[in-house]
Amino acid sequence: MRIRTSSASPGRPAASLDRDARDLLLTSATELFAERGVAATTFSTIATRAGLTPAMLHYYFQDREQLLDAVVEERLAPMIARVWGPVEADGDPAVLIRGVVTRLLLGIEQMPWIPATWMREILNEGGLLRTRMLRRLPFDKIRIVGAAIAGGQADHKVNPTLDPLLTVFSALGLVMLHMATVNIWAEMFGRKPLNHDAVGRHITGLLMDGLRHSPKPARKSSRRKP
Amino acid sequence: MRIRTSSASPGRPAASLDRDARDLLLTSATELFAERGVAATTFSTIATRAGLTPAMLHYYFQDREQLLDAVVEERLAPMIARVWGPVEADGDPAVLIRGVVTRLLLGIEQMPWIPATWMREILNEGGLLRTRMLRRLPFDKIRIVGAAIAGGQADHKVNPTLDPLLTVFSALGLVMLHMATVNIWAEMFGRKPLNHDAVGRHITGLLMDGLRHSPKPARKSSRRKP
Repeated sequence: MRIRTSSASPGRPAASLDRDARDLLLTSATELFAERGVAATTFSTIATRAGLTPAMLHYYFQDREQLLDAVVEERLAPMIARVWGPVEADGDPAVLIRGVVTRLLLGIEQMPWIPATWMREILNEGGLLRTRMLRRLPFDKIRIVGAAIAGGQADHKVNPTLDPLLTVFSALGLVMLHMATVNIWAEMFGRKPLNHDAVGRHITGLLMDGLRHSPKPARKSSRRKP
Repeated sequence: MRIRTSSASPGRPAASLDRDARDLLLTSATELFAERGVAATTFSTIATRAGLTPAMLHYYFQDREQLLDAVVEERLAPMIARVWGPVEADGDPAVLIRGVVTRLLLGIEQMPWIPATWMREILNEGGLLRTRMLRRLPFDKIRIVGAAIAGGQADHKVNPTLDPLLTVFSALGLVMLHMATVNIWAEMFGRKPLNHDAVGRHITGLLMDGLRHSPKPARKSSRRKP
């Protein structure tokens, strides 16, 4: 541990290590949150996982509230921005939904702790990231996709039995749910866990056509683009 | 509280009240588990919610393990049997999926605590009903539905991009997820919470046809039965 012994604040690391140590602590925190939940994760466990001292963790994050703020601002918010940024009004509903699903799966590939944390700390009442995250949801973008689906229904191009806004949540939910349980599901049925691509293909196929066998491919518009 | 003062065991209720008191305690326990989780629910809170004494709770259930066994055996297992019982081999995949979704929604109408408990205590790693429930899953019935979907794919009647077994879990997951979050979702978007029928229509519509608008109704076989 290269902590400057002459530092004014105890536990303060060399300035050049600041960024790396802070990142490492945030990464360890998010991993532990996914594995055992926020409530069961102590500062001391996070420091141990990162191979640093609790004093260093306290140097960067005064208390758990500050740490949770950092997880949301610096890890979850940028992911939300990447998933939803490209969503623009007047898009084709199937293309919009497909894009959100694909980008969310990509984000989860980079941050595998997200689905378990989403289920435990955001969906559950009393989840410790719930209030913070609900404030950060991209309501405007979700409404754009909902409006695209409603518009498609009005034009008799989209399944009229769907609730337009709820469809967005069905798509997000299927991704989070299947990615959070991909290992236990495989274990239960004695199969190899599906990889991201296979889960993505299943979810996109379900969202596009459901059980229905479509003689014509549903995704010709995006596939056959010049 | 009509507790017999002459009883040999302290807290032992009159025999005629046994069944009712035990049911009431189990109901209070399941409600509290859904609201705040198993770990955060004490015997004393359960007794208070039921309007009974902790001694009575201890009379029926020695410890938390015994209480959790009773919740699974007497509340969750019968619901699983009702949902999956009618599933028989060689059925039409769409009819099988539709039946499971409909019966699960009915069960949730009777036991509204199920979706939140499923998310918190069964899906989450470390969930306190997880091991008990995984043992009770109707693997044979799930495999029957998976096989029906795979058979439909082989006959070019079912969407070939679906993973047959995962489709069953997509259906269950959509029901649990949407029913567990129906209130928060409505609140977020300033809408009235959808009722069971509306959620059921959305989920069934999504599972049958996805976003695709089908000129011919997908469910003619079940609707137009004589």
